Amino acid sequence: MKLREVGEREVIKRVIKRFPQMVEVGIGDDCAAIDIGGQLLLVTTDMISEKTHIPPGATGFQVGWFVSAINLSDIAAKGGRPLGLTMAMGLPRSLDLGFAEEVAKGANACAEQYGITIIGGDTKEVDFATFTGTALGLVAKGQFMPRKGAGVGDMVCLTGSLGGAGAGVYAVKNELGRRSEALREILEVYPRVNEGIALAATGYVTSSMDISDGLASSLYQLMEVNPVGFRIFWDMIPQSPYAIKIGKKDMALRKNFALYSGGDYELLCTVKKEMVSLLQKRVASVNGSVFTIGEVIKDRGVVVAEGEVDTVVENRGFEHFL
Amino acid sequence: MKLREVGEREVIKRVIKRFPQMVEVGIGDDCAAIDIGGQLLLVTTDMISEKTHIPPGATGFQVGWFVSAINLSDIAAKGGRPLGLTMAMGLPRSLDLGFAEEVAKGANACAEQYGITIIGGDTKEVDFATFTGTALGLVAKGQFMPRKGAGVGDMVCLTGSLGGAGAGVYAVKNELGRRSEALREILEVYPRVNEGIALAATGYVTSSMDISDGLASSLYQLMEVNPVGFRIFWDMIPQSPYAIKIGKKDMALRKNFALYSGGDYELLCTVKKEMVSLLQKRVASVNGSVFTIGEVIKDRGVVVAEGEVDTVVENRGFEHFL
Repeated sequence: MKLREVGEREVIKRVIKRFPQMVEVGIGDDCAAIDIGGQLLLVTTDMISEKTHIPPGATGFQVGWFVSAINLSDIAAKGGRPLGLTMAMGLPRSLDLGFAEEVAKGANACAEQYGITIIGGDTKEVDFATFTGTALGLVAKGQFMPRKGAGVGDMVCLTGSLGGAGAGVYAVKNELGRRSEALREILEVYPRVNEGIALAATGYVTSSMDISDGLASSLYQLMEVNPVGFRIFWDMIPQSPYAIKIGKKDMALRKNFALYSGGDYELLCTVKKEMVSLLQKRVASVNGSVFTIGEVIKDRGVVVAEGEVDTVVENRGFEHFL
Repeated sequence: MKLREVGEREVIKRVIKRFPQMVEVGIGDDCAAIDIGGQLLLVTTDMISEKTHIPPGATGFQVGWFVSAINLSDIAAKGGRPLGLTMAMGLPRSLDLGFAEEVAKGANACAEQYGITIIGGDTKEVDFATFTGTALGLVAKGQFMPRKGAGVGDMVCLTGSLGGAGAGVYAVKNELGRRSEALREILEVYPRVNEGIALAATGYVTSSMDISDGLASSLYQLMEVNPVGFRIFWDMIPQSPYAIKIGKKDMALRKNFALYSGGDYELLCTVKKEMVSLLQKRVASVNGSVFTIGEVIKDRGVVVAEGEVDTVVENRGFEHFL
């Protein structure tokens, strides 16, 4: 059976079966966590390839920044304080050395934004460029925010607006607006590290993940490990100004950006209802935001409510191989 | 300037300049080391690609094993106790799912051999398969074995025989002997983790690295960070039985295998002269070996002594991009 017949999440599932990990949490969560005496060491690895992730026109700096950012986003989702990043670059012989240097510069600039640096790396020859980041972080054992733990009645919260990255990809594909603006939306990601640390410190987050695959897909992934369902309120989802600009009055398109397009790298978490305003204050104190966008319900499934009408959200997002 | 015009080590140097790391040791050593309170957290990342590292006929299991092994070898070189491994797989759509599963199985089998498991991973779509491992380890602060520290008069030591991997690559290229035997020599690497821990515990190792790029290249890399030179005694280099079998009486070929071919993943270290026999006993107690193959000298340069004649060793080994 070829990979194109099964899709990325099935590939990951089949591969995971071969990894009977012996850590606190591991594969299936955003990060692996290893107990190193009171603290958990967080590790995550995320790879991008020229073929699937790098839109034409992207600068080396943007590519490097993006690789660091998406890895730090996984650390953020668990409440971790970043420790360092490594970067493995697969580079074609024909690549310009200046581009490779810019990737390194961008990767380190993003790391420095969060108080760390690139601490190790590797380069190898390949036909199409690939960049693999690995981020490390630390979190106190009691503050780790797992994917599992959402309870009926909890609120569903989000650290920022949705749809910007999806609108960016759409704009590039359809040559709408300025390319540079679209590329910024896709690649200049600011992982919610400070928000994650602030959220974790409260102790009131019941589950957390980052939404790299899109809101819909992420909610289904949360549902896989929690015996609950989710109702999202369409009107409460903060939509990115850029998504609104590109989507205009085409509500189907804007829903696609906000629900099904990946790449926004916000944190999605569930929170005990009575604690939401406290969380919002704490996150505001690190200049972040927490929006309530829905609730955890007893009925399995993911629905989006518009006025009186609940519509089933499809379980789809960006998948490789298919 | 294109990468093919400058070669891998120059690419790494140029990229490194962009990473002003803030850790104990970092880029330029086998692992980065982060102080996490008394202990050092070791991190290393190593990538292989279908194009440059995977000989035709290799099984998925062997490929997975190899990726884990070469990463653990860097942890071993610093005296680290392995904590866990992550694995990012770039996979083509046309790849057989069974092969990907075998890679995962092999990667985990190697990890388990050293008491750990694969704790995280990622898969992405690419045109040619790439596999990036990241290994984590811990070492007591005083036991970290850096590349820097070799002193004139120290002995140069090695944990095993050389030339097996080089002979394997040569045999595959020239269709000598059984393919399966050659592939075993190239891919079924046993990183010297227990040896590294035993060596580090003695406190008498003055510098250490793994010799993935070949003995000659590794000695030149040690010379870059130590103001010394090296004299190697040809007759004291343990040559792999397989290298002897393939090289037969062609001594130029056998020298090429032992000095210039990479892929043997032994530990190369310098040791205070009077402590060598103690080290040999300690490493023997974990069923390993330490061979003395040369000495650290005042004169800059790397020479190999045969009888009365010193010959300059060339600074070459396997380099990508060229």
